[in-house]
Amino acid sequence: MTDNGRVRAEVEIGTRIGHANTNRVTVRDLDLVDDLIGQVSYAELTLLAITGKRPDQGAVRIVDAILVSLMDHGLTANALAARLNYWVAPEAIQAAVATGLLGAGSRLLGSMEGCGRLLTEIRADIEEGTPRREAVRDRVRELLDADERVPGIGHNLHKGEGGDPRAAKLLAVARREGYAERYVPLVELLPEVLTELTGKSLPLNATGAIGALLMEVGVPWQLHRGFALMSRTAGLVAHVGEEIDNPLTPEIRKMLRKVSWIDEDGA
Amino acid sequence: MTDNGRVRAEVEIGTRIGHANTNRVTVRDLDLVDDLIGQVSYAELTLLAITGKRPDQGAVRIVDAILVSLMDHGLTANALAARLNYWVAPEAIQAAVATGLLGAGSRLLGSMEGCGRLLTEIRADIEEGTPRREAVRDRVRELLDADERVPGIGHNLHKGEGGDPRAAKLLAVARREGYAERYVPLVELLPEVLTELTGKSLPLNATGAIGALLMEVGVPWQLHRGFALMSRTAGLVAHVGEEIDNPLTPEIRKMLRKVSWIDEDGA
Amino acid sequence: MTDNGRVRAEVEIGTRIGHANTNRVTVRDLDLVDDLIGQVSYAELTLLAITGKRPDQGAVRIVDAILVSLMDHGLTANALAARLNYWVAPEAIQAAVATGLLGAGSRLLGSMEGCGRLLTEIRADIEEGTPRREAVRDRVRELLDADERVPGIGHNLHKGEGGDPRAAKLLAVARREGYAERYVPLVELLPEVLTELTGKSLPLNATGAIGALLMEVGVPWQLHRGFALMSRTAGLVAHVGEEIDNPLTPEIRKMLRKVSWIDEDGA
Amino acid sequence: MTDNGRVRAEVEIGTRIGHANTNRVTVRDLDLVDDLIGQVSYAELTLLAITGKRPDQGAVRIVDAILVSLMDHGLTANALAARLNYWVAPEAIQAAVATGLLGAGSRLLGSMEGCGRLLTEIRADIEEGTPRREAVRDRVRELLDADERVPGIGHNLHKGEGGDPRAAKLLAVARREGYAERYVPLVELLPEVLTELTGKSLPLNATGAIGALLMEVGVPWQLHRGFALMSRTAGLVAHVGEEIDNPLTPEIRKMLRKVSWIDEDGA
Repeated sequence: MTDNGRVRAEVEIGTRIGHANTNRVTVRDLDLVDDLIGQVSYAELTLLAITGKRPDQGAVRIVDAILVSLMDHGLTANALAARLNYWVAPEAIQAAVATGLLGAGSRLLGSMEGCGRLLTEIRADIEEGTPRREAVRDRVRELLDADERVPGIGHNLHKGEGGDPRAAKLLAVARREGYAERYVPLVELLPEVLTELTGKSLPLNATGAIGALLMEVGVPWQLHRGFALMSRTAGLVAHVGEEIDNPLTPEIRKMLRKVSWIDEDGA
Repeated sequence: MTDNGRVRAEVEIGTRIGHANTNRVTVRDLDLVDDLIGQVSYAELTLLAITGKRPDQGAVRIVDAILVSLMDHGLTANALAARLNYWVAPEAIQAAVATGLLGAGSRLLGSMEGCGRLLTEIRADIEEGTPRREAVRDRVRELLDADERVPGIGHNLHKGEGGDPRAAKLLAVARREGYAERYVPLVELLPEVLTELTGKSLPLNATGAIGALLMEVGVPWQLHRGFALMSRTAGLVAHVGEEIDNPLTPEIRKMLRKVSWIDEDGA
Repeated sequence: MTDNGRVRAEVEIGTRIGHANTNRVTVRDLDLVDDLIGQVSYAELTLLAITGKRPDQGAVRIVDAILVSLMDHGLTANALAARLNYWVAPEAIQAAVATGLLGAGSRLLGSMEGCGRLLTEIRADIEEGTPRREAVRDRVRELLDADERVPGIGHNLHKGEGGDPRAAKLLAVARREGYAERYVPLVELLPEVLTELTGKSLPLNATGAIGALLMEVGVPWQLHRGFALMSRTAGLVAHVGEEIDNPLTPEIRKMLRKVSWIDEDGA
Repeated sequence: MTDNGRVRAEVEIGTRIGHANTNRVTVRDLDLVDDLIGQVSYAELTLLAITGKRPDQGAVRIVDAILVSLMDHGLTANALAARLNYWVAPEAIQAAVATGLLGAGSRLLGSMEGCGRLLTEIRADIEEGTPRREAVRDRVRELLDADERVPGIGHNLHKGEGGDPRAAKLLAVARREGYAERYVPLVELLPEVLTELTGKSLPLNATGAIGALLMEVGVPWQLHRGFALMSRTAGLVAHVGEEIDNPLTPEIRKMLRKVSWIDEDGA
């Protein structure tokens, strides 16, 4: 042991995603300067970095559609939290954005990855020989037996026949781009099967559609919530921008002062 | 005061970025379903959400170039931190991503917004009548007098004449897209003026180019670091994905165990 | 709607924990200056703030024992993550500490609150008339039937008869302070009942003891992990202090540079 | 390079704070079970972990006084942010607490460490031979010349002669415990010297007193904000507890719904 309490240790370390050295940066073996900057979009490089495969333009457009659909929902609770934290630490925008992302919890985004997981399980059953409709029915019944919600279905507002218009639009984009073969048909069966099993009529919602689309373009369900994080990061930066120009925090602090006077600089 | 210690308060609250209601979501008054999903890209909606103006495709390609240039630099310290935290809380990918973003501090990303700020000040001087070269010289001298680094210039590795190849590529994209009129010429003067004032020859670096480009497309300097956050969020999700398939954490924990045995489940 | 997109809204807001106004700060109706500073300890005010009741000194010593037992476990993965993030953003120690706390996930600390929850359920069964041993047996069997681990029992290292020495010490403190009547006897039955049901011999571990002690002093299981956070915050501040005097990050970065050269200031 | 892109690297790693191994946990070479649990308080172990020296009971009582003074200031903006984030991710209390800590930014807590830093500089000047009053005057004049506030002095409310009652109480505790020799006299000179130099009469505030006391017990100024984090962590856990029993979030969300309807589960 050395004087500062250290010992030498060996470790096997590395990544296959990207490399940076004195001469160049590569992502998935493509050169940042020669192959990527000015040639690919954010969505394309994201899909490449995650899957390790160069996506076709259809897949890229699907990812863009997903990222667009999740960017902003107005003044949500986590956007407000981010703005409050930015106001007290404007030198650290990363802390404000992190605040907003920490509000992207299970109650808000849980059903997206839940749907991706369900579709993964159904698909595996089909690969092993279970007929499609039966596979869907078995897994949905399993959830119902465990008293769990079927993720991706139902909505507290769009209860009518039309369902959630974002879901319909996202599925239409998937069809347009030729990515509606493996998971989209499964997610579309969910409402049907649910009605069959319970009599209830609940439409597909946006998170269900997103789960199916991300599976179609090769993103494993464990990373689905990550796409909400990417998207929301942009939305949160926009909220920070508005907070700078037109701050809400003083209004909120005035409101809080009704119950607790806050000592700005007295710790 | 009510029983639970509450009082009624009034507050004036709202946002101009986006709205969500039972019928539809809008971002900057465009309808998510009718106008945005499947029609605009992540970079386009980001720019729209932040600036409030619909960008042209040139500006969108510039934002994509910037986001692409910052997405991944291999196994950086904050990517490692994110992976370590994911491993202990796989149910909360948002916490792992937040961890990585919290490592996007001043030492790593400070010069990007510093350069944007400098260019903002120079531009304001020019608007008020100072000749371009003089405006650049005055502000650079100010920094040198205060013993501060000139942000956006210099690089610990690319010291040669060629400079940082990413910077050159980013400026080329700006020219290609017709966004090299207001800030790009200023940032290109920085190395020249520095040589003039100090004799030192330091090239423009990537953060300098990014600062100039973001100013060109209308993003205020206070939000520049936010583009690194958007970009890095995608890179961090890719690292989480690799951590799931091929975890590094057990290797790091084995290394740490050499100095401290870690009790996984004993708190 | 006003010009900046705002509307007036009413909200009922407040807290019973504490108040701050121009004259004084109170916590649970005690005056900070007259009643608290210089008179009560951190553990005492913590318990008061959380439970709303002034604790006796025995309960305070139990909380101190718990907080002490969780403060530091050497160079853990999350301490390392915190140190890496501090190094890149030394202006924001709160981000480094937050990083370390975000690593306090379910895999590391899940069993503490799991045990508190289990004891809560058992206690409720007893209040409703189930005999003590039967209540323990029923709930343990329920877990075994669901193929879940019994939280608070077992340890990857201290498998022998002695068990986890921290658990024994914590229970001894509880007895010394007269807080071993309601939950301690239940947690002590867990290993016995497990042996009875499965033949396996697993000792009580530290998280089990902590869960029982926190229940004894009136802290609901949902907040148990919070005590690990308080404690770890102090440990993380110590790690930041060591990072300042004797940084590990350059060593780690040197190691990472073997696989990815990191550009400190090039974003 | 191995198949998964890894290479072997060596690293010198370790800590002097604590160790954990199969037999025991030590903090600063004291045994957790034999020497610490049930024998020392949170404040005592914190000071030991940070400074590496066993503190006397006077120093411990000072740390307790500081931690008590910072624990809760009612429903502050960051407490609200933490509660909003808890509500959407109740499975991850660490994310809610991290949210609250991320709001402990420069605007809220900057002056505490600023005062510690100022006192450190003054003390160094005195050690090098500058007379005490002159040392204080020089450093205060330096701040005034740079148009900066003198940290630790002044208060938006307690402007009268009495000053901030928390400051007076904290200094009284320091005197009672025999820790008012090296930094307390310096901090007490600050208001006097300011009046001398500017004619303004501003009292010492709580953050000034805390900065002086932490210096007295051997905590370097860079870690001062860390004590606010420890303290606030407990306060935030209390707020989470209140949020569980008596949630504010639905009220806030109802208020937000006036401007943006939030889709709980539609992402």
